[in-house]
Amino acid sequence: MRSERELIRHIRRLSGNAKSRAVVRGIGDDSAIVSLSPGFQLLVTTDLCLENVHFRRGWHPAPAVGHRCLTRGLSDIAAMGGEPLACFLSLGLPRDGLPKGLPQAWVDGFLRGLLSLAHRFKVQLAGGDISAARQITVDIVVAGQVPAGKAVLRSGARPGDRIYVTGSLGGSAAVLQQLYAGKKIKPARSNAHFYPVPRIEVGAWLRKKGLATAMIDLSDGLSVDLAHICEESRVSAWINASRLPISKGADLQLALHGGEDYELLFTAPKNARVPSRIAGIKVTEIGVIRNQSDYSAAIQILGENGKVRPLAQGGWEHFKRQR
Amino acid sequence: MRSERELIRHIRRLSGNAKSRAVVRGIGDDSAIVSLSPGFQLLVTTDLCLENVHFRRGWHPAPAVGHRCLTRGLSDIAAMGGEPLACFLSLGLPRDGLPKGLPQAWVDGFLRGLLSLAHRFKVQLAGGDISAARQITVDIVVAGQVPAGKAVLRSGARPGDRIYVTGSLGGSAAVLQQLYAGKKIKPARSNAHFYPVPRIEVGAWLRKKGLATAMIDLSDGLSVDLAHICEESRVSAWINASRLPISKGADLQLALHGGEDYELLFTAPKNARVPSRIAGIKVTEIGVIRNQSDYSAAIQILGENGKVRPLAQGGWEHFKRQR
Repeated sequence: MRSERELIRHIRRLSGNAKSRAVVRGIGDDSAIVSLSPGFQLLVTTDLCLENVHFRRGWHPAPAVGHRCLTRGLSDIAAMGGEPLACFLSLGLPRDGLPKGLPQAWVDGFLRGLLSLAHRFKVQLAGGDISAARQITVDIVVAGQVPAGKAVLRSGARPGDRIYVTGSLGGSAAVLQQLYAGKKIKPARSNAHFYPVPRIEVGAWLRKKGLATAMIDLSDGLSVDLAHICEESRVSAWINASRLPISKGADLQLALHGGEDYELLFTAPKNARVPSRIAGIKVTEIGVIRNQSDYSAAIQILGENGKVRPLAQGGWEHFKRQR
Repeated sequence: MRSERELIRHIRRLSGNAKSRAVVRGIGDDSAIVSLSPGFQLLVTTDLCLENVHFRRGWHPAPAVGHRCLTRGLSDIAAMGGEPLACFLSLGLPRDGLPKGLPQAWVDGFLRGLLSLAHRFKVQLAGGDISAARQITVDIVVAGQVPAGKAVLRSGARPGDRIYVTGSLGGSAAVLQQLYAGKKIKPARSNAHFYPVPRIEVGAWLRKKGLATAMIDLSDGLSVDLAHICEESRVSAWINASRLPISKGADLQLALHGGEDYELLFTAPKNARVPSRIAGIKVTEIGVIRNQSDYSAAIQILGENGKVRPLAQGGWEHFKRQR
């Protein structure tokens, strides 16, 4: 294992591979310096990823962990309709306690996965911090920008708006369910659980066209994340189970409550012309926003049996409790 | 202990107490939205603080931990001559494993300490993340701004420049040494170890006046942090032991190698008129920048015995190894 200083030097060299024009000064000073475009506002999001909470070393190869950690941050920027500019990595690594500490190869694989995704979206790793820690500790910060006043908030949904999702739902949770069941799964690059792709282009397109009234990324699961939109917009929602785009290998429960799909959930006015594909990604209308007073529960679901019932919030928390 | 959701709601309510005009949208969306002043660049710094690495619950009261974590980030902004705008908190808390988990009172005290300092510098807590964790895990992100092109870097020191420090050195490490020795110390608000004050006003003054050619904050200790300036500026340095402002209770070794004083170390041209106090804080000239080729080691120190010797890097790492 490299010393902290050697690791910082190593990361500093690697970070040059994913240079963003926006980063004026990256690793090597007290703070990074980032230049925003004139007339743009700053977006900032932080996401904490901890071993045995958000990932397991026995399940998730190191590059997938790096990729997944950064996806969480990029997906938050996508959900605002923003453009990511730079990322920051606070990394805690076990030194003592384990038989030999954490293998250097794990750290290298983690960085490779993270920086490969950063490179794809032209996001520079511009700073961070390193410490010894009891468990692998990753805090990813992403800074992005959006034209002033144009960010798509959670709070803009209005009664009558239609509800849409990108891609398909439940695929990540389906893989997780198999992992919990003890099945060995090859972590292919195309696997939505191991290598989810943040919907940056879709989010930016929706913001540019002014189509979305509210947006959130599906990190905790549809039932939880749609409830966030309802809470912030002070509305309720009605969704149609038969309309949900369910991933191959998943089912309705996983599509409703499984987390970590990193698709976008957004609302648009009834008469808005929302294409069936945006930036190559399928878009599906799944329901409608209603007045808050319409129902006692925030979300109602029309089941495949033709009956409407309140949708309880499940989502990611559900899996955590099972551990 | 509150649930994660309750804790986020609690923090969201508290964060309103330290509102910054720059924060357009704080806690409650996928990302925070921050508005920079026209013509300014963004500064970002992240600092990871872990229980039993950066603090101990038996030594450091919860409000002091919150204060110290935020000071680390604010001090990084100060060292660029910047103005802090917003902070972000990624917080990992033990739920299982401990007899009863972490007491709610600890979390409340931590937040009180952090938000009290945030309020003092008009920095809004604008976002973050929460997770279960094996040890108390705090990652503090501070976003700030500086007029474009005017940040004071580590890399601007030139041969002939004089070296200055604010305040006095070694005070924090002297307290830490006593804590290691098993002494009980009352964590008074005026204590530089428990409640260090970031030198925001001094850093901003130096940047405005264009006096400092390079600057860094003293987090790791003078010997380590001055070496960072030498490395980034490709120069060497010569300091005079008898000139060092040593804190009450400290000695030369602690002033040279003790960390966490959060004073500013800066360089200024030979003929610059650097006042003996800036924003009420004492400023002391302690040495001079030389050509890199002058000496084999980066830093030489003129001792009180009249002899010049190379200064090995000690600093904070030294204390960590002793644990």
